[in-house]
Amino acid sequence: MNAPSTRTQVKRIARNASYDHVLLHAIVDAAYVCHIAFTDEHGTHCIPTACWRGGEFLYIHGSNGSRMLRRLAEQDCCVTITHLDGLVLARSAFNHSMNYRSAMIYGRFETVAESAKRRALEDFMDHLAPGRQAEVRPGNDKEYAATTVMRIPLAEAACKTRSGPPNDDEEDLGIAAWAGVLPLAQAHGTPVPDAHSTIAAPDYVRDWPTVISS
Amino acid sequence: MNAPSTRTQVKRIARNASYDHVLLHAIVDAAYVCHIAFTDEHGTHCIPTACWRGGEFLYIHGSNGSRMLRRLAEQDCCVTITHLDGLVLARSAFNHSMNYRSAMIYGRFETVAESAKRRALEDFMDHLAPGRQAEVRPGNDKEYAATTVMRIPLAEAACKTRSGPPNDDEEDLGIAAWAGVLPLAQAHGTPVPDAHSTIAAPDYVRDWPTVISS
Repeated sequence: MNAPSTRTQVKRIARNASYDHVLLHAIVDAAYVCHIAFTDEHGTHCIPTACWRGGEFLYIHGSNGSRMLRRLAEQDCCVTITHLDGLVLARSAFNHSMNYRSAMIYGRFETVAESAKRRALEDFMDHLAPGRQAEVRPGNDKEYAATTVMRIPLAEAACKTRSGPPNDDEEDLGIAAWAGVLPLAQAHGTPVPDAHSTIAAPDYVRDWPTVISS
Repeated sequence: MNAPSTRTQVKRIARNASYDHVLLHAIVDAAYVCHIAFTDEHGTHCIPTACWRGGEFLYIHGSNGSRMLRRLAEQDCCVTITHLDGLVLARSAFNHSMNYRSAMIYGRFETVAESAKRRALEDFMDHLAPGRQAEVRPGNDKEYAATTVMRIPLAEAACKTRSGPPNDDEEDLGIAAWAGVLPLAQAHGTPVPDAHSTIAAPDYVRDWPTVISS
């Protein structure tokens, strides 16, 4: 599969590149946060924000007053998601690396219409905590009116990943240094109910903590 | 403490902002990867790359051929580090939030001189695996010559953090929804030695796995 555009053509270590949308969806779906690069009169900015996927779009939201959201409607930007999976320890300093899954999406955000905004924000809640939308107080008209939802097509995107052991030079294999991978992963800790909580934990809370098996 | 410049003045939810360098150092030191926003003739880019701190500078490295490194020498950029600490579940959809620690650094990278490059890369190794530099084959002249190290001052930076429970509206406290925090953290998995490994695991490998106490 070829890159969808010049600026998504991965040049450095191109063997780690992919333009496959199954991989792209998996990387986006594993993320709660993306980083967005855009420019304004003060320079270039890189801002983290919550994200979720709906079909072939990545969604973000924010206050109507957000400087970033206003700028994103007027210019192309780059949205990047990175999952760091491990430190790769080779026998030479030079061959050290990291395992990761990353996606870069280029294009322009469009504002989601009022008629589609509620559905999009419900998708966001489903991404955070499946089933929770039915339990909480839904947004009222004032809250919805204060919120902007935007989406960018996933059409112009590239993924880059590395996995597996270090790639040592043949002549370094005899060096007496431990070599392998120190894995990293996003883990879920024990849920912390707030001071007013009297409600039994629903499934998405009970099932939250990461089970560590060794 | 005031923002060091106009573009580091946090405007949105400014109570979450900080310009304290103790916090800034802690956020940078907890990171293996940052995201860098910069521009070229194809547009604005947001690229993840490994980073480490030395004094009041953030360091990155790469191949001499890296398009990003060449561009960063010529323009101001924005470097962002984000640690996501949890999903914050409120009783209303609108008051959901996330806990996080983030840092944004503005300024220009400078290329680290040949005479300081080895020391900088040794600091990087110490950041990844303390003590490992003495065990591996160090870089040779060819490897060092192929590597560019750059650094950006931490002078123009802003941090933004959120922690703690949800902030529900008073009138929502009676709603029958579980409320609290679902914690997220970067966890360390069981080290995976490579196929040729015969060396006993050093301390930084043995001590790597996250100990989960409940």
